[in-house]
Amino acid sequence: MYDNFRFKQPIYVTKPILPALKDVNQKLKAIWQSKWLTNHGNMHNELEQKLQAVLKVRNVSVFNNGTIALLTALKALELPVGSEVITTPLTFPATVHCISWNGLQPVFCDTEPESMTIDPERIEELINANTSAILGVHVYGFPCGVEKVQSIADKFDLKVIYDAAHAFSTEINGKGIGTYGDISMFSFHATKLYHTVEGGCLSYKDDQYIDKLYYLRNFGIKNEEQVVDIGINGKMNELQAAIGLLNLELFEQEKQNRRMIKSLYVQNLRELDGVTIPRMPPNVTDSMQYFVIRIDKENFGLSRDELYEDLKKYNVFTRKYFYPLCSEYEPYKALASSATENLTVANRIQSEVLCLPLYGTLGTESAQRICDIIKLIRETRLCLSLEREKLRNF
Amino acid sequence: MYDNFRFKQPIYVTKPILPALKDVNQKLKAIWQSKWLTNHGNMHNELEQKLQAVLKVRNVSVFNNGTIALLTALKALELPVGSEVITTPLTFPATVHCISWNGLQPVFCDTEPESMTIDPERIEELINANTSAILGVHVYGFPCGVEKVQSIADKFDLKVIYDAAHAFSTEINGKGIGTYGDISMFSFHATKLYHTVEGGCLSYKDDQYIDKLYYLRNFGIKNEEQVVDIGINGKMNELQAAIGLLNLELFEQEKQNRRMIKSLYVQNLRELDGVTIPRMPPNVTDSMQYFVIRIDKENFGLSRDELYEDLKKYNVFTRKYFYPLCSEYEPYKALASSATENLTVANRIQSEVLCLPLYGTLGTESAQRICDIIKLIRETRLCLSLEREKLRNF
Repeated sequence: MYDNFRFKQPIYVTKPILPALKDVNQKLKAIWQSKWLTNHGNMHNELEQKLQAVLKVRNVSVFNNGTIALLTALKALELPVGSEVITTPLTFPATVHCISWNGLQPVFCDTEPESMTIDPERIEELINANTSAILGVHVYGFPCGVEKVQSIADKFDLKVIYDAAHAFSTEINGKGIGTYGDISMFSFHATKLYHTVEGGCLSYKDDQYIDKLYYLRNFGIKNEEQVVDIGINGKMNELQAAIGLLNLELFEQEKQNRRMIKSLYVQNLRELDGVTIPRMPPNVTDSMQYFVIRIDKENFGLSRDELYEDLKKYNVFTRKYFYPLCSEYEPYKALASSATENLTVANRIQSEVLCLPLYGTLGTESAQRICDIIKLIRETRLCLSLEREKLRNF
Repeated sequence: MYDNFRFKQPIYVTKPILPALKDVNQKLKAIWQSKWLTNHGNMHNELEQKLQAVLKVRNVSVFNNGTIALLTALKALELPVGSEVITTPLTFPATVHCISWNGLQPVFCDTEPESMTIDPERIEELINANTSAILGVHVYGFPCGVEKVQSIADKFDLKVIYDAAHAFSTEINGKGIGTYGDISMFSFHATKLYHTVEGGCLSYKDDQYIDKLYYLRNFGIKNEEQVVDIGINGKMNELQAAIGLLNLELFEQEKQNRRMIKSLYVQNLRELDGVTIPRMPPNVTDSMQYFVIRIDKENFGLSRDELYEDLKKYNVFTRKYFYPLCSEYEPYKALASSATENLTVANRIQSEVLCLPLYGTLGTESAQRICDIIKLIRETRLCLSLEREKLRNF
């Protein structure tokens, strides 16, 4: 039945943008001539400068990847060892791991039903004398309630960190999303709209972090004879920076291409019973990192998991980001804050979300076919259950 | 006076080997075609395989850099939080930072006068109920007393980790140096004989660490629905792996070239009063990572620091690796084990060591000139002090 619609090649949820090889070779030539391969090279510094403008933020420090960036950000904030950091369970595990690896304790807070980000209304009840920070995640590019989070942080003297891995170039009322909180982390992993193969950066408004992060990222070295902090190696090398500089020229076009695919998805799927498409608030620009839908089994006729499995038969590999919740994973499931009753909204969301393929070269034709397949899967399932019911009643 | 001998271009302590750009472009083409830029790609896996043979070890896990590798190794050993790790102060700060960043306590042990590595005779007195591991460093490629260290570890049930950042391809009696201890770390930073721009690996004989390190390096992810450990992102990307594969073809020649320079240095400098050239034991192959000399001010006529400063005037930039000792740095100087009287040998060594330029493209002619400059500096200083003495006696 599905042979006519099935894709010949597997379709995954993303494909990286790639600069032209001749441009890459040109950059490599410059690096080879300088023989300066890493340690705050020219391209590294140029990239930091340019990212400040692109992200509309005051300061940028680039890193070898987003996780090491977040690990370092949490260290820079000098949170007391063993103190608690309130965060969301609906995120990639790296968010929570960075808290734990640094000897801090993650405390899970439920999420808002609409934005799917940490629910500011639920944060206060989790705060105690041992709480040191709030780590919000702009999940799928939907911004946290940044104003509300900040006012809670101010009230209780907490630090605020944002995991903006999905929110490259997102703006709220024309303001870079990386200007909120004390420090924000952006990921430049190959699966991201904008990437440096592996990579990431931190943005922050307070200049006191410029030196602090510089040292922490490079072994705490201040000069040949002074090591002033317990640092690690978080340095982005010149190859990564070169790809990053070239991809700065490409990401806007990629966003355009994704925007077309996204609106085709929306047009096709919004009328389907049981499909909800979370919408970006009108004052927020969409990072085009993901296209996420939510499946309500009752009304859709089949569950998210059933749709996910059926799509595979058509060679379409969607992702259930972020199922399971981080609070369900082995290292965290015993935490008091992981209790299901504490996370009812997030638990519902994780059972409903599905990310569909979204990347420029997918093209609108393939996107249309994916929509048709979804409709076909649904109708087939509905028919079958109708048949079964008939047989039962017969 | 020094204008005739002065180098026109600054001479630094190292310069990276670089594969031909056409070969790099070829590899990039393959990566671009696959669109697989990171996350355990083909080149990543091929490099791990090949390194097992080159390093003569059972298992290899590659990382984005050596520091993240060491940080992960210490996590993999599951040392109790707050426990003590006995290490050497005569090392690059990353060694000690990895202990501290993971919530463990570094305890400094004095070094041997000859090998300059951690002194096994001094380890036992530092062991207490809270000691969990010994972290030795094969500094400048000189192997630690691996047998003695292991017998102490066995006696007290401690883990043994080696920082083999300087010991790529070093063998002891034909056996890969990475086979000693529980886990060894090699660095592939651009300043190393063999490099992947930034990078590193862990080697280990116990197969139980294969999965453990795989998970820790990649967010603890076992599969799409299971996260089994608190991991970070330590993944080497395909660009790094590509450079690594190409440099595997080059490093033996580089070693040859360095060997010629080293023997020229030895011939010229060994007869100078006050210069000691630490010698590799006959059963150990030299990694050719550094050429280190020791300056005894009394007999040489000027101190290591004076020689270092004078060499700069000739555009020769040597390095005082590893001065100051890690125990002297801000984050560690208050530790009980940092007391000078506890580290008398290491303290003497740090005041004497000087690493001279060592890289293949330096060439024997420049190396000869560096030797001549050292002799000239010494004679000039001796003459001047003779003159001064004459004047005093006059």
